[in-house]
This record gives sequence, structure tokens and C-alpha cells, in this order.
Amino acid sequence: MQEIIIIKIGGNSIDDVHALSNFLVDFSNITLPKILIHSGGKMATELAQKLNIETKQIDGRRITDEATLDVVTMVYAGLINKKIVAQLQKNNCNALGLTGADANSILAHKRNNHKLDFGFVGDIDAINVEFIQSILEKNITPVFAPITHDKNGILLNTNADTIASEMAIAFSKMYKVTFVYCFDKKGLLLDINKNESVIQHIKTSEIEQLKQKQIITQGMLPKIDNIIHALKNGVEKVILCNVQDVLSILNGNSIFGTTFTI
Amino acid sequence: MQEIIIIKIGGNSIDDVHALSNFLVDFSNITLPKILIHSGGKMATELAQKLNIETKQIDGRRITDEATLDVVTMVYAGLINKKIVAQLQKNNCNALGLTGADANSILAHKRNNHKLDFGFVGDIDAINVEFIQSILEKNITPVFAPITHDKNGILLNTNADTIASEMAIAFSKMYKVTFVYCFDKKGLLLDINKNESVIQHIKTSEIEQLKQKQIITQGMLPKIDNIIHALKNGVEKVILCNVQDVLSILNGNSIFGTTFTI
Repeated sequence: MQEIIIIKIGGNSIDDVHALSNFLVDFSNITLPKILIHSGGKMATELAQKLNIETKQIDGRRITDEATLDVVTMVYAGLINKKIVAQLQKNNCNALGLTGADANSILAHKRNNHKLDFGFVGDIDAINVEFIQSILEKNITPVFAPITHDKNGILLNTNADTIASEMAIAFSKMYKVTFVYCFDKKGLLLDINKNESVIQHIKTSEIEQLKQKQIITQGMLPKIDNIIHALKNGVEKVILCNVQDVLSILNGNSIFGTTFTI
Repeated sequence: MQEIIIIKIGGNSIDDVHALSNFLVDFSNITLPKILIHSGGKMATELAQKLNIETKQIDGRRITDEATLDVVTMVYAGLINKKIVAQLQKNNCNALGLTGADANSILAHKRNNHKLDFGFVGDIDAINVEFIQSILEKNITPVFAPITHDKNGILLNTNADTIASEMAIAFSKMYKVTFVYCFDKKGLLLDINKNESVIQHIKTSEIEQLKQKQIITQGMLPKIDNIIHALKNGVEKVILCNVQDVLSILNGNSIFGTTFTI
């Protein structure tokens, strides 16, 4: 089975121009076929504020109304995605920026929740592996913004973590997938204040114990659940790490980063 | 030689949601391979105003500074392009939204003018026909936003009319190209106030006379020059028309639209 690296970046690594630029050089140096998925960072929130678009929340959950959908489409699919693509092109990585609407690459539906209308938020139905694979075979690197569509003319704001894990799962049918999940810390830490306390390798069976010991705490739970979901559905391994360390981890030269296996 | 239809839309047809939607249904019904190039409409100007970004002009020419480049990247490559793609997907036209940076499909350089710095404005160097053709061969329809790149990490605001005519010329080496150039009028009019006065067919050799007779006036000159440039460089025919009439003209069922041939 051919290998593929699927990487999700977001948060600070999008907002910090210097960190992003460094990561994109490292990313370009990955020789295996690769896919990048990015989230939005603070820029969309800042643009919405400048335009006096209120961030609507119900029960602490953000709602994507039409004005907010326009903002995230502009920022995620326009500004961030195209700046990343242009930088990768500079690094001789032949990148192609995509939303789920482009070539119908990610089909979704508007979240259906009887208790709460999240607005234009998408839950994924299908990843168009055939199209994405055809692109990869031309040595083109897909770069996904977290916007999908419903094939009925509607764009949908879609969680980038979920896109990344569903992409990893979809590709695991035909590839040996390494899913690299970047976040602000150096990995799963035994002591949240000490980078040296990173757990270098862990199996899904050991995770329950860490939850009980409160080593995996509230904020980490959705990430860990996303990782377990990917591993249980065919992904070979998941690396949780900081963008700074991606290349050295993939090359086996880092003491940082947590590798999860089934 | 295989036929291809290359269509440029802009202005009112982008701003008027209803007109755009109708056009996209017609566009989806074109059975030949096709490429769409869109410009920006008023939305970018409106967004810049809301964000208090001054529209800079020198000698009556607009300047694209960094803040303006961000705005046009958001509006052209994000909002407009992805809304068009989503609507085409709804119409079962398998659209793929692109800027020139994506898969290095249009390479440009920052306009070099010793008298005047236009800012982040691109002049086209190369169209990546090989990539675009590989997409067309999968029955995917490319939809271009008027943003290119310099392969050195910089995005460039680029005239959509020029992208469209250079695209038409590049494809004319391997395809029989019909370049459909949409604008607000019904075609080239003998009397600007009468749609019935549309000239249905004209050869490039007859154009000089119309200029002398002031039938082709100031505002039309850049469009006509663009059309002549395309025809002199291999494009089979150019149709100047309104978006409303594109499909009926292509099907030979319209009294409107002007067909230009060499």
C-alpha cells in the first residue's frame, strides 16, 4: 500500500505569518503524497467584528448565519487558502486550493438538530477520493479550506478537524495513512506545563486510563475522540504535535509529538 | 480539432443574483467543454468601503495596495468564485474554482511600469494548458477568479478580460475556440440606444471603419482591441453579447450578439 500524509493545521499556526511560512517550507519538503487541511484562525472573527457582524451563539455554540457564512467563505476559501497555495507554489510544491464544492470533493448536509439550528454548518456525507487521488497522481497537492457544500447550491461551514479525520479515513481504504494533527502543544503531555513530559507513543487502549487520571482533560477530549475515531476506521497512525515539529517527526528525528496507534 | 467554449462574465451579471443564477443554468446546459472566467463586480468595492480601505488612484488608474489585494482575494477567489461553483454543482456541472496560483494554472508578474506603480497587479506570462486540459478531460469545468500569482509567493489582481482572451489564445493551439465575451449590451450596436441595431456578424477588417464612424466609441475600444488580439492569435470566433443570450446564440437561435471573425 502506498503511503500518504494528511496534515491538519489551525489556530496560532494560521494567525502567525512567520510560523505558517516556516511550516509551509517543511510541508513542501515532505516527499510522500500529501494533503493539507487548514482551519480559519482569528481572521474571520476579526473581519466579522470590523463589519459589525454579531457572532451569534446559542447555549455557548456558535451559529453560522448567512452573513457569517459569507465572511468565512471569504477568509477561509479566499484569503487564507490562496495565500497558502501561493506560498507552496513558491516552495515548488504544486498546490491546488479546494473547498468541498470544488469538483464536488466533499459533500455535506446542513446539520440537522431539532434542538438547535446551527445555521450553515455542514456534516460530511462523502469524500470524493477518486478526484483527489487523480490530482495526487499528477504530483499536485490538495489544500482544503473548511468549507463544503450540499450539492444544492449551499456552501457550509465545516469543522476542519472533522474534514481532516474523514479525509484520513476515506484514504485509508487505499493508502497507508499517517494523519498529522497539529495543535498548540508539543503532543499529549503528562504534565501540561512541561514539554519534556510528552508521551511519545500511545495505544488507543491506554487512553481510557489517561482520561480517568485527568491527564486528558476537557479541552483535549474532542481532539482525542477524533483521533480514536480515525484509528478505529482504518487510519494507520495519528501524530499529535506542533507545526514546528512535523517534518522532524516524520523523519524520525524528534523527541516531541505523540504517535497514536490502534 | 475539438471545440471549446470560453466565456467571460462580469459587471452586472455578477452583482445581480437572479441574472447570475439564470446564466449559470444556461452555462451548465452547454454540452461542449467549457471554461468560465469571472470578474469581480461591485462587491469588492463595497467591502473595501465598509472596511474603510481607501480606493487609491493615480492619474485615474486604480492601484492595488496590500489591503486591496486582500479584499479582492477574499471577494473574487472566496465569495464569488465559491458561490458560482456551488451553484454549478447544483446544476450538475462539475465545476472547479481556480485562481492562477492553483496548480500554477496562470503565471504572471507584477506589472512593471516605470512611470506608475499599480501595486499588486499582474500581467500574464503563461497559461498552464496541460493542467486545465487534464481537468477538462475528466468532464470538470474550470471557473477562474481574476487572481494570479508570480510563483514567488505573491498573489496578483489580474484583469479578467485579459485572462479570458489569453486563455482563449492558449487553447486555440489545440482546440477550435469560441470565446464568448459577455457585457451589458446586446452586442455591437449601430445605434447605442437600439438593441435591434446589433451587428450580427463582423470581420476584423471592417472594424477600423466603425471606429472612424464613431460607432465604436471610447468605452468599447479596450474590449474591441481585446477581441481583435484574440482573433489575430488563433481564436476561431468571438461572440460579444449579453449573458441572457449566451445559450441561444451558441444554439444559433438568437437575433442578438455580435460574432467577430478574422
